[in-house]
Amino acid sequence: MSKKLWGGRFEGKPNEILEAFSQSLSFDQQLWKEDLQVLKAHVSMLSKTGIIQKPIGEKLIGALAQIEKEIESGKLSISGDHEDIHSFIEAEVQKRVGESASLMRIARSRNDTVITDVRLHLKKALQELEKLHHAYLEAWVNLAEREKEKIVPGYTHFRRAQPMLFPFYCLAHISEGMREREALDMTFKWTDVSTLGAGALAGTTWQIEPETVARELGFSSTFFNALDATSDRDFILAFYFVSTLILTHISRWCEDFILWSSEGVGYLHLPDALCTGSSLMPQKKNPDPLELLRGKSARMLGNLSSLFVLMKGLPSGYNRDLQEDKEALFGAIDTMKISLAMAAEILKGVSLKGDALAKISKDDFLLATDLADELVKQGRSFAEAHEMSGKVVRYCEENGKSIGELSVPDWKKLVPEINEEMLSHLVFEKSAKRRESPGGTGEKAVAKQLAQAKSWLKSKTA
Amino acid sequence: MSKKLWGGRFEGKPNEILEAFSQSLSFDQQLWKEDLQVLKAHVSMLSKTGIIQKPIGEKLIGALAQIEKEIESGKLSISGDHEDIHSFIEAEVQKRVGESASLMRIARSRNDTVITDVRLHLKKALQELEKLHHAYLEAWVNLAEREKEKIVPGYTHFRRAQPMLFPFYCLAHISEGMREREALDMTFKWTDVSTLGAGALAGTTWQIEPETVARELGFSSTFFNALDATSDRDFILAFYFVSTLILTHISRWCEDFILWSSEGVGYLHLPDALCTGSSLMPQKKNPDPLELLRGKSARMLGNLSSLFVLMKGLPSGYNRDLQEDKEALFGAIDTMKISLAMAAEILKGVSLKGDALAKISKDDFLLATDLADELVKQGRSFAEAHEMSGKVVRYCEENGKSIGELSVPDWKKLVPEINEEMLSHLVFEKSAKRRESPGGTGEKAVAKQLAQAKSWLKSKTA
Amino acid sequence: MSKKLWGGRFEGKPNEILEAFSQSLSFDQQLWKEDLQVLKAHVSMLSKTGIIQKPIGEKLIGALAQIEKEIESGKLSISGDHEDIHSFIEAEVQKRVGESASLMRIARSRNDTVITDVRLHLKKALQELEKLHHAYLEAWVNLAEREKEKIVPGYTHFRRAQPMLFPFYCLAHISEGMREREALDMTFKWTDVSTLGAGALAGTTWQIEPETVARELGFSSTFFNALDATSDRDFILAFYFVSTLILTHISRWCEDFILWSSEGVGYLHLPDALCTGSSLMPQKKNPDPLELLRGKSARMLGNLSSLFVLMKGLPSGYNRDLQEDKEALFGAIDTMKISLAMAAEILKGVSLKGDALAKISKDDFLLATDLADELVKQGRSFAEAHEMSGKVVRYCEENGKSIGELSVPDWKKLVPEINEEMLSHLVFEKSAKRRESPGGTGEKAVAKQLAQAKSWLKSKTA
Amino acid sequence: MSKKLWGGRFEGKPNEILEAFSQSLSFDQQLWKEDLQVLKAHVSMLSKTGIIQKPIGEKLIGALAQIEKEIESGKLSISGDHEDIHSFIEAEVQKRVGESASLMRIARSRNDTVITDVRLHLKKALQELEKLHHAYLEAWVNLAEREKEKIVPGYTHFRRAQPMLFPFYCLAHISEGMREREALDMTFKWTDVSTLGAGALAGTTWQIEPETVARELGFSSTFFNALDATSDRDFILAFYFVSTLILTHISRWCEDFILWSSEGVGYLHLPDALCTGSSLMPQKKNPDPLELLRGKSARMLGNLSSLFVLMKGLPSGYNRDLQEDKEALFGAIDTMKISLAMAAEILKGVSLKGDALAKISKDDFLLATDLADELVKQGRSFAEAHEMSGKVVRYCEENGKSIGELSVPDWKKLVPEINEEMLSHLVFEKSAKRRESPGGTGEKAVAKQLAQAKSWLKSKTA
Repeated sequence: MSKKLWGGRFEGKPNEILEAFSQSLSFDQQLWKEDLQVLKAHVSMLSKTGIIQKPIGEKLIGALAQIEKEIESGKLSISGDHEDIHSFIEAEVQKRVGESASLMRIARSRNDTVITDVRLHLKKALQELEKLHHAYLEAWVNLAEREKEKIVPGYTHFRRAQPMLFPFYCLAHISEGMREREALDMTFKWTDVSTLGAGALAGTTWQIEPETVARELGFSSTFFNALDATSDRDFILAFYFVSTLILTHISRWCEDFILWSSEGVGYLHLPDALCTGSSLMPQKKNPDPLELLRGKSARMLGNLSSLFVLMKGLPSGYNRDLQEDKEALFGAIDTMKISLAMAAEILKGVSLKGDALAKISKDDFLLATDLADELVKQGRSFAEAHEMSGKVVRYCEENGKSIGELSVPDWKKLVPEINEEMLSHLVFEKSAKRRESPGGTGEKAVAKQLAQAKSWLKSKTA
Repeated sequence: MSKKLWGGRFEGKPNEILEAFSQSLSFDQQLWKEDLQVLKAHVSMLSKTGIIQKPIGEKLIGALAQIEKEIESGKLSISGDHEDIHSFIEAEVQKRVGESASLMRIARSRNDTVITDVRLHLKKALQELEKLHHAYLEAWVNLAEREKEKIVPGYTHFRRAQPMLFPFYCLAHISEGMREREALDMTFKWTDVSTLGAGALAGTTWQIEPETVARELGFSSTFFNALDATSDRDFILAFYFVSTLILTHISRWCEDFILWSSEGVGYLHLPDALCTGSSLMPQKKNPDPLELLRGKSARMLGNLSSLFVLMKGLPSGYNRDLQEDKEALFGAIDTMKISLAMAAEILKGVSLKGDALAKISKDDFLLATDLADELVKQGRSFAEAHEMSGKVVRYCEENGKSIGELSVPDWKKLVPEINEEMLSHLVFEKSAKRRESPGGTGEKAVAKQLAQAKSWLKSKTA
Repeated sequence: MSKKLWGGRFEGKPNEILEAFSQSLSFDQQLWKEDLQVLKAHVSMLSKTGIIQKPIGEKLIGALAQIEKEIESGKLSISGDHEDIHSFIEAEVQKRVGESASLMRIARSRNDTVITDVRLHLKKALQELEKLHHAYLEAWVNLAEREKEKIVPGYTHFRRAQPMLFPFYCLAHISEGMREREALDMTFKWTDVSTLGAGALAGTTWQIEPETVARELGFSSTFFNALDATSDRDFILAFYFVSTLILTHISRWCEDFILWSSEGVGYLHLPDALCTGSSLMPQKKNPDPLELLRGKSARMLGNLSSLFVLMKGLPSGYNRDLQEDKEALFGAIDTMKISLAMAAEILKGVSLKGDALAKISKDDFLLATDLADELVKQGRSFAEAHEMSGKVVRYCEENGKSIGELSVPDWKKLVPEINEEMLSHLVFEKSAKRRESPGGTGEKAVAKQLAQAKSWLKSKTA
Repeated sequence: MSKKLWGGRFEGKPNEILEAFSQSLSFDQQLWKEDLQVLKAHVSMLSKTGIIQKPIGEKLIGALAQIEKEIESGKLSISGDHEDIHSFIEAEVQKRVGESASLMRIARSRNDTVITDVRLHLKKALQELEKLHHAYLEAWVNLAEREKEKIVPGYTHFRRAQPMLFPFYCLAHISEGMREREALDMTFKWTDVSTLGAGALAGTTWQIEPETVARELGFSSTFFNALDATSDRDFILAFYFVSTLILTHISRWCEDFILWSSEGVGYLHLPDALCTGSSLMPQKKNPDPLELLRGKSARMLGNLSSLFVLMKGLPSGYNRDLQEDKEALFGAIDTMKISLAMAAEILKGVSLKGDALAKISKDDFLLATDLADELVKQGRSFAEAHEMSGKVVRYCEENGKSIGELSVPDWKKLVPEINEEMLSHLVFEKSAKRRESPGGTGEKAVAKQLAQAKSWLKSKTA
């Protein structure tokens, strides 16, 4: 049986299955560094405010610092029969300073401690994630610039729709990135709040200074209400939301890239280093990182809904159900780090195949909108123009021709008013570059978007 | 077979099951007003920029205005065999002005139109929801002030933990409300973007002015990238996220209220007007609105995850799967409106029963922390103090006494250092009012929180 | 204010917002027919057992029959200010027979009534769904037979892997269908249980005969325990599970079909009748039914998780939260009906394009496994054989050749032991037809699977 | 860089981030035993059919057996730079027998191997889980028998509704258990299918015998179609579904038990061994195992929806996204094992407090239905009887009386026809025991249900 931080009112020992079932040390040990930090800040405040005596405070802080060093160096390993990381650490302090170790528990509960630990942990992770996210968006910018001139078919319904400049495609994902960053920033703000000093639920009669503690821990603000501080997991929900959002966005371009690099489409080049093979089929070059990335949103969405389910209908105040929040969190942070790194790596590695694109640019059915637009300029109603252009496509299909291959008699029959100038617009490259409406795929429109994206990215580095 | 906005390249008629399966008129008709607004703004821009002739523009706008009036007055009903609301409206315009109706389709696609319609619709809804949310938080403030003096047991693990001022409890939910508002504001910002002018995916060759349209429609900004504009549903995801967050918070205090108003606990009064009865059991007074509210988060979470699932792995650009986003959205908006109104109504109706609370205040086991704290002040280590206080509780339990009923010999045995001053603190009301640490349940601490909450609320009305 | 089935203990009127918030008539009116059926069976049992007098029983049944006829003929419309369908119907009976209408409430609660109504409703739906599901699987069989000879590339990782007979692909989906049917059958069994007679939660002191009622309603069994009967929604969860399973399976072949009918791949023909067009782009033929079907699993999964969330942590016995179960259910049933019908319709409409497939059959990299296998037969270790075959592919790729185009010197260099017989196996069609291992894509293996599938299907019709 | 099972067609090394991102050894090593089993069965079949030579077969099997022993004894540890467990094991075999190790890959792919491994693993787990589930239901039976005579308030809407025998409550959960078992059995059946021999997707040209392999591995059946065999994860979905179902059911009685053992209600006794304390509040005895159990359904539902999301819209055949299925599965199995064990342990430990129940039995408002029923027997319509009984309750409430405390004049005013016999029924204990309708809480009705439950349980042991 493990040593507990409680027991006076209890008779007999806890049930063994319960000990195995309710222990959290196997995962909350990942918070050891934060727990030590929080304890140091708490003890230092207790000492400053005179709640404990200075020499005791110093002894405690000394012990905490020693423990930190020993864990870091591998001399001390986190193990043994403890309920959680808090019990483990208090036991270690006690070994070093005796009974006064428990003075660290004055005006502090595990309820406010653990959530402060988690906030510290996630805050550090978010700082790193914002950097990785920034690098990921830079990879999009670089890819846009590397493949500045390429024109690819834009799709709707995974059917070729209109030609687009490849950078225009990249900018769509940078546009998503701007929202992602805003949601990351809100998550950061919600996380960056010290909750130490909330006690079990209602604050304390000791004259503590939560703001002093917050400052020492580097938090930007302090909790508003103690009951909320101990019940609230909104910052984790926000983290899962933005993570699912990012991974869902990523799943979409991964799907694009899987399709575009497949045998039938083939204009995206995935270097060998980003593929893996088959143990059975020697010819296979599989886009594994793209598939794995595509799948990551599934688990993250699972985390998001699990936590909502966990919270739903819980009475106010801390409930032990909330212990379930942590195990998933550590995994989610790791997933986000490696996924953003992997995503950036893919963007660095891919390129477009000019020859494959050249073949596709022969598919001039994508210019049917342009044809209709020209007909409207000649005075047709849009409905008529749309119908005529559609019939041109059908005629071509039935006769195995491209629009460019239609003969003069064909045209006369289908579009009496056709003229040279109209025909001159029906060119794949032109079509993309002429869509100069704001936000469009036109050359200048794209240049403007790219400039804005770069300046936005720069503003986020500072 | 319905009249379609396309067809030139098609042979034969669409499949009948397909028509039933893919029609969206039965639900997207809720966008009729927005669709008319968007069309008017578009036509007016086409006319201003000379893309269509002024007289035609005027005729079209006249027809649109007439249709609006007729639908509003009930003269025209939205029905018939149309694919969607856009087809219905174009058909109506055509009845009034003939073929030139289709000119409204110049430089515009259903892809950018529908999402602009939805944005307009949700934006209006969010404006209303922010008002309802504000009123809901005001109801918490009013409840806190109405029951300013009441002291209730605070719970953790649904076990009585420490006494708290009832307003302290209300403030925990106002604290949640502040985050909710921040997430609502972000959602609003993401929604308040005009996407008209994105075309099908890539902008257009026509020299349109999306910002003119945005201004006329009252949007604060215009889309950054056309492909993103037509693919993106992040603003709806954000709406579902904040809605699930709000309803999950509400589910928690509903659970509290259901428990607190139950026979065994009984200090929360739910007026008859907020209860319903049983068709079989004459004595029943059921807290139905609390239960229904508690359940609302379930469906909203379903909406949130459904939309993520829908988006996951979709190729970039519009895909028809996205049609699924709308039906749920209308229901979700209605749910949020009625739920916030209902929640505020409940807060207006409930009160605390002084007599029931007086009985509970006899349960002085909640003062065990205070006792431990006093012992620490007398020089005990916290572990010792905790153990002794725990033993006092156990002794009381075994002897059927409250702490207040312990005799002097009892005390001498259990806590040798006990003294009058220590005992004077072991009072339910005092315990709550003395927790004066910042954010705590102490009298001044609560007054300060309440003042802040009120001033925050005021700042959000302006 | 609506007339209620309760009120004696209440003072004053219910809150108006509460009435709007808690009414369920707007959706539970879909249960009108089942509610009448249940009432008739109940009254008939009360009369048979002598709990009510025969003449009263006859009068009541007469009134119920009349109401049914009037609703059916449109003479009576379900409307007005009633809490729910039960209140509406009792009010109508009362109009016809006076006060004795309320005798229908003897030994019956809305708790057991509503869930019996829902079970009847879902049971009928499941009967229809099993037929639609059967027809859907028959459509797969027919498609397999229609395109018996076609050979298509099999994919893993959406990369061409090995050639397969198209019927082999169809059989994979029939194989899913067999599991789907098993889960449908379990759902049916869980649904097909009468719960009338459970009362509010605990049965009744009246000497009722639930089995008589069950028999009259056509249920196969009666509830085991009254508390479970009124709390349980497992049969709906099972329905959502199997529905999500079916729609997820469907989403996968829809994805296949979208890709295979796209410009780059192109060997699946979607007739015009199964496509829709674009209002802007005249050339577009979009695979809308496939996309819409692909998206349907998203909403159904939302239903499944919503209901779990709703149930989670609810106290035993009926709680009003459960009202939320119904609205989604009606929609889910409709979705399943139309989705299965649409899916079958698509399978009836598609065909494979021989010419496109002929082109793909030139891609002999898919035969790399066959080459490796032949090398193993010549005595190579598998690792060596895999490596050599992989190098053949790489050499071909670098030199722009297919395997079939390699010259004798090429072969000598790459695979010294090559011989005529080995080369004779490296043929697209042969490769598929030779995989005769049980369950494989070989000709006989497929014929055997198809025969089994047909006999299984037949066994399910009876 | 790790050694791979492929490479001939690749140039250069895989990306390092990709190696970290895509490795699965860190979790699929849990399949080491199953992978060895599968390999032994495969090799033995290859040898039996003459595909490889007997002596080679023996050498390979010897090596596999040796590896098993070494891992078991701890001599060999699973580590190093391998993609997955399959690569690790092949490398170890190669160390022992050289190049011929790769012959194990004949007619076998990682696609069919891994899913066969997973099936074996889950099958063993399900066998254990069915035992634990059985023991859990036995614990309910034992609890029912231990507390046979206790009468507790039955609730609807967490309001006291009607008295019930405690065993009646237990039987409701056994009733759920019967459905749970049915779903477990279906899951078992879906899992118990050998998929080895499906190859990468299409079977093989080698004349293998999948049924021989299946028999050796102890599977009851063999896959029907190779493509389905490698794509299908339905058995895991079914496992998550039944697991979520079980945990959701458990969450409901945990909620009951948390409430019933709380200070305000207090008739359920949770022994100290099933509670934990607070590090701050000495008086706390928290129902942690109940709370933790209540929360478990949240994560399991997350697993269920994640896997559906992962599958949704994936092309047929193996896709690497599916790797994500495994990590969660191992955790889910552990969760189910410990949760069922914990649940049984709680049922063994709890008891009902007679004294607390005696107090509650004074609350005779629960008898209002009985009063109404008596009035109907006296000839009142049900509506009248309900109204009168409701008024009795209201009168009592307003005058601070129980029904039993009403005076004769009170009665005369409220219920003119009251008589001794009617009053004699208005007793808490009687009310429960008289509800003798089938499935009800009456004494005989409960005895019958209990006998059925026991005989059902017995039938499931065999």
